[in-house]
Amino acid sequence: MHRLQRVLDRLVDRVDTPMPIVLVDVMQRNIDRMQAFATQHDLDLRPHVKTHKCVEVGRRQVDAGAVGITAGNVGEAEVFAGAGFDDIFLAYPVWPSGTKGTRIRNLAQTARMRVGVDNVAAIDALADAMGDEPDRLQVVVEIDCGARRSGAPPEAAGDLARAARSRGLVPAGVYTYPGQGSAGPGSREPAAQDQEAALSAAVRSLAGVGVTPEVVSAGSTPTVAFSTRSPITEIRPGEYVFCDLDNTRLGACDEDQIALFVAATVVSDWVPDQVILDVGTKAMGREGNPEKGYGGIAGSKAVLAKLNEYHGFMAVPAGESCPHVGTVVPVVPNHVCPVVASFEELLVTDTDGTLLERWPVAARGLLS
Amino acid sequence: MHRLQRVLDRLVDRVDTPMPIVLVDVMQRNIDRMQAFATQHDLDLRPHVKTHKCVEVGRRQVDAGAVGITAGNVGEAEVFAGAGFDDIFLAYPVWPSGTKGTRIRNLAQTARMRVGVDNVAAIDALADAMGDEPDRLQVVVEIDCGARRSGAPPEAAGDLARAARSRGLVPAGVYTYPGQGSAGPGSREPAAQDQEAALSAAVRSLAGVGVTPEVVSAGSTPTVAFSTRSPITEIRPGEYVFCDLDNTRLGACDEDQIALFVAATVVSDWVPDQVILDVGTKAMGREGNPEKGYGGIAGSKAVLAKLNEYHGFMAVPAGESCPHVGTVVPVVPNHVCPVVASFEELLVTDTDGTLLERWPVAARGLLS
Repeated sequence: MHRLQRVLDRLVDRVDTPMPIVLVDVMQRNIDRMQAFATQHDLDLRPHVKTHKCVEVGRRQVDAGAVGITAGNVGEAEVFAGAGFDDIFLAYPVWPSGTKGTRIRNLAQTARMRVGVDNVAAIDALADAMGDEPDRLQVVVEIDCGARRSGAPPEAAGDLARAARSRGLVPAGVYTYPGQGSAGPGSREPAAQDQEAALSAAVRSLAGVGVTPEVVSAGSTPTVAFSTRSPITEIRPGEYVFCDLDNTRLGACDEDQIALFVAATVVSDWVPDQVILDVGTKAMGREGNPEKGYGGIAGSKAVLAKLNEYHGFMAVPAGESCPHVGTVVPVVPNHVCPVVASFEELLVTDTDGTLLERWPVAARGLLS
Repeated sequence: MHRLQRVLDRLVDRVDTPMPIVLVDVMQRNIDRMQAFATQHDLDLRPHVKTHKCVEVGRRQVDAGAVGITAGNVGEAEVFAGAGFDDIFLAYPVWPSGTKGTRIRNLAQTARMRVGVDNVAAIDALADAMGDEPDRLQVVVEIDCGARRSGAPPEAAGDLARAARSRGLVPAGVYTYPGQGSAGPGSREPAAQDQEAALSAAVRSLAGVGVTPEVVSAGSTPTVAFSTRSPITEIRPGEYVFCDLDNTRLGACDEDQIALFVAATVVSDWVPDQVILDVGTKAMGREGNPEKGYGGIAGSKAVLAKLNEYHGFMAVPAGESCPHVGTVVPVVPNHVCPVVASFEELLVTDTDGTLLERWPVAARGLLS
């Protein structure tokens, strides 16, 4: 029997499905392993909390040695600052719409606050928001290393740092995200090479305006294994804490490092070679495609072949028997982050199935 | 200028993006129109709260004449029962895992509670959960009318109703969901015909065991226009309350009936013919495909061509100018339900842009 099914069988009477279940000892090993990797390579580890949005997990990451956390929006930063985290990097080219400028200024009162910038207009808007204390806010220039998402060209880093300095903000360094490293197993190392080259060019650009970066920050769970060389000083992986099927497919984690699954119940079985599980898009997101499916069943070749809002269509391969109605099965996400953000809390257990705690997904609905 | 952009421009200083914005007068017209349609055809309207998960919206639907509400899971039913809704149909083939049996029994103390069933094992489990008062729970047999999801064959309805009655539960009727009606504009009417045929067969099956159904319940926003004939007594549309691009494409709503959009800010613009908005999968879900995109921009042919967790890649068509960084734009969802469920609250305004209220998405994270 699969290890996740074994855990689930011990918990099953206490689980109202769908429910995300965290194996705390597997998660802790993931945290410790990534910290050991960073320490070995003399890198700062600043985990991205987007994956867990959970104060208890962030504390374990910092307790293990992380220098601080990475957030994806102001709301996440506020939740963690409110819980006492005092070194936060909002790795996003934030525009201070509405009250966000004031919120960022407030954050900078209680935490060492860094935010991403990739354009002069945002630098000006942030400086305006900081009023008479712009030097309380550190900005980190986002550069693009090939993901074609956000981020300035590396050679623009110097000009942006100079613009920030001229407004009294503190230019702390540069960061990038090698999203192209998630395209397939063969894309991880080339993406990390792109990243290293772009960060090196950005550091030269900063040197041209007399800025020595405090931080040169790199992603990500898929690419981190190849992101160890100068000028990188910091890594920001997120998904490593729970892992998922996409990272397994990429070779970025092993199947036995998967620390989170969703308990789901078979609710209907009228269609041959298919059963319906009580996990739809509102639990799983719609992360996948028709070829690989939208989530896997641990210990089975079955996948979620299709999702409606409250229904998961589990396609049962030839040769496997359909689980009967009422069976609770462990569903493993393709991409774990949106799954966590769908729920109010995580049920936390150890591999013996001893129920330990419920952890609130404290930053889940805070999107601005 | 597009009506949604005009509303947004009046609110923009008060909006921290991303933020879902409801046009309450458009929504109220949608509610009134659907109620008038139901009344005209002598049908009970029981709106599905999956779309809004919001007590304030449900109250307006009942105030307009809805006989009760439809819920998708026990948590939704509890939120609405707790707010005083006393006629709730959980239109799902629920299996009472964990404490759900007790929760359903508790719901049946305060509301007229109906739940879906499509198999004998679930009937037995529900009857067990109801203890010595099984007759407080009404069950409605789910039948399949071609969606190949959940639901028994129509001719099995009688046997299931008899099984329920033998356990002391009250068989109240039958329901189905014509999911195949969302395949394209041409599939709405045939799906409704499938639905009518399947419900008719189910009613005959019930008659065979001496059950006269109190309710013969049909979906759905795309098919409701064609779901007016005997034996249907009740309709359960959900999405009509806000509408969305998918329903517009199907011809099930007009563009000017769209009552919800997401305010999003342009945060980066380095890539030609593309800007990055601060709406990713955590705000929008991943509802769409590469052809139609993952959401539209009101008043523009631009779409969200790709989503990351916090980044929306807005592809700007040739001939349109890219909005500059800091611009706030109205993003219209392809499928509105997962978008609402991503947020803590809805910002509610009228078409003048006068800010009225914030409504909590009360049932958002309650998935079990």
